[in-house]
Amino acid sequence: MTIIVAGGAGFVAANILDRLAASGESIVAVDNLSRGRREYIDALPSGPRIHFIQADLADREACLSVFTEAVPHGAVTEVWHFAANSDIPAGVANPDIDHKDTFLTTFELLRAMKQFEVKQFFFASSSAVYGDLGPTPLHEDIGPLLPISNYGAMKLAAEAQASAAAESHLDRVCLFRFPNVVGVPATHGVILDFIRKLKADPSVLQVLGNGSQKKAYLHVSDLVDAMLFVREQATSKVYPINIGPIDEGVLVRWIAEQVVARVCPGAHIQYGTGRKGWMGDVPQFHYSTKKLGDLGWRPTMGSEAALRRAIDEIATQEGL
Amino acid sequence: MTIIVAGGAGFVAANILDRLAASGESIVAVDNLSRGRREYIDALPSGPRIHFIQADLADREACLSVFTEAVPHGAVTEVWHFAANSDIPAGVANPDIDHKDTFLTTFELLRAMKQFEVKQFFFASSSAVYGDLGPTPLHEDIGPLLPISNYGAMKLAAEAQASAAAESHLDRVCLFRFPNVVGVPATHGVILDFIRKLKADPSVLQVLGNGSQKKAYLHVSDLVDAMLFVREQATSKVYPINIGPIDEGVLVRWIAEQVVARVCPGAHIQYGTGRKGWMGDVPQFHYSTKKLGDLGWRPTMGSEAALRRAIDEIATQEGL
Repeated sequence: MTIIVAGGAGFVAANILDRLAASGESIVAVDNLSRGRREYIDALPSGPRIHFIQADLADREACLSVFTEAVPHGAVTEVWHFAANSDIPAGVANPDIDHKDTFLTTFELLRAMKQFEVKQFFFASSSAVYGDLGPTPLHEDIGPLLPISNYGAMKLAAEAQASAAAESHLDRVCLFRFPNVVGVPATHGVILDFIRKLKADPSVLQVLGNGSQKKAYLHVSDLVDAMLFVREQATSKVYPINIGPIDEGVLVRWIAEQVVARVCPGAHIQYGTGRKGWMGDVPQFHYSTKKLGDLGWRPTMGSEAALRRAIDEIATQEGL
Repeated sequence: MTIIVAGGAGFVAANILDRLAASGESIVAVDNLSRGRREYIDALPSGPRIHFIQADLADREACLSVFTEAVPHGAVTEVWHFAANSDIPAGVANPDIDHKDTFLTTFELLRAMKQFEVKQFFFASSSAVYGDLGPTPLHEDIGPLLPISNYGAMKLAAEAQASAAAESHLDRVCLFRFPNVVGVPATHGVILDFIRKLKADPSVLQVLGNGSQKKAYLHVSDLVDAMLFVREQATSKVYPINIGPIDEGVLVRWIAEQVVARVCPGAHIQYGTGRKGWMGDVPQFHYSTKKLGDLGWRPTMGSEAALRRAIDEIATQEGL
């Protein structure tokens, strides 16, 4: 049996490949290497057993070729899809980016799955599908879904396409709605951003927005654990589920202070103005993980513990 | 001032163009004429004043050209978007159809609106965004949205993209979630389908599914009235709203009987098996129009009256 992992050289994949490989399945990791790196795979214990294909899955012929190449390793039974644009401001400036990298990769994977009769789809969706609902707790039964970024819009579009595909030709679809996820190998995100700014200028850390944005963070090790748990426990054919910590999250201000304390004690923190860090940023949200809790899963770390660990991991990654 | 009407030679446009033109604005109607017809526009009292452009709005250059051509008629203030694939089974068989005709037309219109600084977007969405939630009343605050057809998926994707565009560059977005709409000029739908079958074979009417599908129907004249009402009364920047009758709908069986009685009394009605008429069909749903009612709008016709009138109109259209 073969599992195809799209975005297979990226941050989340680097944390799940060993666990997927542990069951004995062949793993085909696919990545366009725009942000992902071969070295992430090579560094894994399972690395030598993973078949890597560099391909842009938004391209129809390239996507079909991946399935053709995968089949000799064993019948493809699952597709895990982590490939996406992860740069929200870039996608706001140019909607083609999210359409191609987030939506079309999904669209073409689902189309190829129909052709190759692959029945199980595991998708990295996002809390961004909910948009900015203010103090309303974001649980899976809420609507309307009005994303405020093209990133969120194309994650929702991808969910919708997967849902329709389930009616037509899939047996199972898990829609994992990710929170903010931290850990290594870090390729983007607030911690890496802060650390790189401090490396460039150790005297001051410029923060976008007034620091009052409050968000929940999950460590990638918990995220991977939750997805594998849901894979076994999901109770419906199409299963949207929020993944996240149980707490209400932390302020950006607190993250800035922790990063400074770890990598550059004494640096001055300078805040911008406004609630939002950037266009498409959801400044504050209450992310309900009750459904996941009721299913029986608990994270090992809350937002603060996840961030402290990730700050240390990313600082180390950056040679600090 | 100019209003661009996408899908401007289609069924719904043929019923709204006169009313949009009545306010004195220039109207630019755009259609690829795959289902729409120039004659629908020419037959309208406002027809001679409507500027028609044949273009495929999913094509970026063609879409931008439409805006360039529209500007000399007056600054473009609104885009009404009715262009879409309306053949659900065709879209299930080939997802490219809904992606291109329903999603990409929206995507390119929104992109052009950003470039040309057009701020108001009125979109023909669909009850199909909800999927098959069984007996749960479908109101605007419900989730998750799990469409079961590519048609519904791409309507939801288009809503999501419009919502993100509102955050970035629009002042107003109305997301009109259409029910089943009947009237003339009919280009598709259950009534036209039944009448054409009876014209081909007056002895028997073959019905897909067992006839127990229950749906609500709105007459197009009420639909148009509701949209123009919501344009004036919408209470939020991005405003998703269900439009439909107040009743629970009628059985497909009842529609078949009414059509036979009007056009071919004595024809035998032969039912298929199964709850669903076709892949992607939502066999029964409870469509809540409470939000629209609370806003102050009431339809003039319930499902039965709308269908009786439309059956007569479409039979006349078909020369019967």
